[in-house]
Amino acid sequence: MKREAFLKIEAYMRACMQDSAHDTEHIYRVLYLALEIAQTEKRADRDVLIAACLLHDIGRQAQFENPALCHAAVGAEMAFAFLVKNGFSEPFAAHVRAAVATHRFRKGSPPVSIEAKILYDADKIDVCGAVGVARTLLYQGQMAEPLYTLLPDSTVSDGEADTAPSFFQEYKRKLQGIGERLFTQKGREIAAQRQGAAEAFYNSLLREVREPYECGRRLLVDEIEP
Amino acid sequence: MKREAFLKIEAYMRACMQDSAHDTEHIYRVLYLALEIAQTEKRADRDVLIAACLLHDIGRQAQFENPALCHAAVGAEMAFAFLVKNGFSEPFAAHVRAAVATHRFRKGSPPVSIEAKILYDADKIDVCGAVGVARTLLYQGQMAEPLYTLLPDSTVSDGEADTAPSFFQEYKRKLQGIGERLFTQKGREIAAQRQGAAEAFYNSLLREVREPYECGRRLLVDEIEP
Repeated sequence: MKREAFLKIEAYMRACMQDSAHDTEHIYRVLYLALEIAQTEKRADRDVLIAACLLHDIGRQAQFENPALCHAAVGAEMAFAFLVKNGFSEPFAAHVRAAVATHRFRKGSPPVSIEAKILYDADKIDVCGAVGVARTLLYQGQMAEPLYTLLPDSTVSDGEADTAPSFFQEYKRKLQGIGERLFTQKGREIAAQRQGAAEAFYNSLLREVREPYECGRRLLVDEIEP
Repeated sequence: MKREAFLKIEAYMRACMQDSAHDTEHIYRVLYLALEIAQTEKRADRDVLIAACLLHDIGRQAQFENPALCHAAVGAEMAFAFLVKNGFSEPFAAHVRAAVATHRFRKGSPPVSIEAKILYDADKIDVCGAVGVARTLLYQGQMAEPLYTLLPDSTVSDGEADTAPSFFQEYKRKLQGIGERLFTQKGREIAAQRQGAAEAFYNSLLREVREPYECGRRLLVDEIEP
C-alpha cells in the first residue's frame, strides 16, 4: 500500500475514534497480528487487510450512541463510503466492507474471504490471554460491573450459572473458549499460546476471593453473639 | 460482638457506601482476611477489629467529591462520631478511629495498635495477587486509563519509567512490592502466596502486547511503499 493511502485511512480511523483514544491501540494490535497471520496465508491481499484492520471498529461511536446498532454493520458502510469517496476502487472498497461487516460474527454471516477471516482471528486474539482479561476488566470498570456475584449461601459463584454481569460470568461465557472458533491455523496457534495466562488468572482470582469468604466468614460467625 | 452492634455498624457502612455498591465486597474480604490474620495475633481485640474493618472506607465518598480530602482521615472522624452517638464507649470509638486513620499509611503516622496493623495488612492483601490486578484494572477502566504507553521508538514501555498513568506503571509503582511492607507474619504469608499470580499476569500481558508491536510493526513497514 502506498504511504499516502495508508496515512489517509489511518487519519480517518483516528478521527472516528477520537472519543475512545485508548481503543486505537487495539486497532494497531489487530493490524500487527493480522499481518503476522497473513505471513502463513500468502494469497491474502495485504492492502485490503490493512484497510479492513484500520477501519474495523469505526462504527463503535454510533453503537455507543445507539446500542441498537451493530458497530460492524455501521462501520462496514462507513468504510465503503469513505474509501470510494477517497479514490479507492469500488471492488477494493466492497472487499473491505465485507471484512468489516463480518469481523464480529457470532451467528448469521461468517467471514468469507481470507482477509475477512484473518481480521476476525486477529480481533479475537486480542480478547485471548492476559490482554483479553485486562481489556474485559477495563470495560467492566467503565460499566461498573463487579468481579463476582455471591450465591444464596454466601459463597462466591464461579460464573458458570450467573445471570447478572460479572468478570467470572464473562470469562465463562466469552473468554474461556474464544480461541477455538478461529479460522486460520496461525490464529489458533497464537490463541492457544495465550489461553493458559487467562485460565491461570481466572483460577487464581477465584481461589483468592473464595478463600476469605470460606475461612473468614466462619470466624466472623463465631465472633457474633446472639 | 453482639449481633445488634454488628448489624448497626454494618448498616451504617452500607449507607455510607451506597454509591459504590461493589466496593462493599472489598469491605467483607478485608473483614474476613483480618479475622484470619487475628487467629495468629491472639491479643487483638476482635470487636475493635470488626468495627474498624467495616468502617475503614466510609470516607471514600467524601474523597471522591473532594480529592483534596484523605478518606482515611475523614472516615476515622466519621467512625468515631457514629460509634459514640450509638452508645459505644469513647475508648472503643477512639481505638477504632486510630485504626481507620492509619489504614492507608504511606508516610507519616504508621498503624500503632495490633488491630490497626491487622486492618492495614488485610486491606493491602486485597491489592495483592490476582485480586489486586483485577481491582486495579476495574479502577483504571473507570478512570479511562490505558494498559500501557508507547516509548518514542514505538515499543511498549514496561511501566518502570512511565510518567503518565497506565496499568504497567501502577504494577511497577504499587502492586509489585506491596506484600513486603506488611506488619504481621500471617499477612506477609498470605501476600507472598498471592504475589506470583500478579507477577505472572504482568509478564504475560507485557509479552502479549509487545509481540505484535515488534513483529507486526516490522511487517507493516515492509508493506508500505514510499
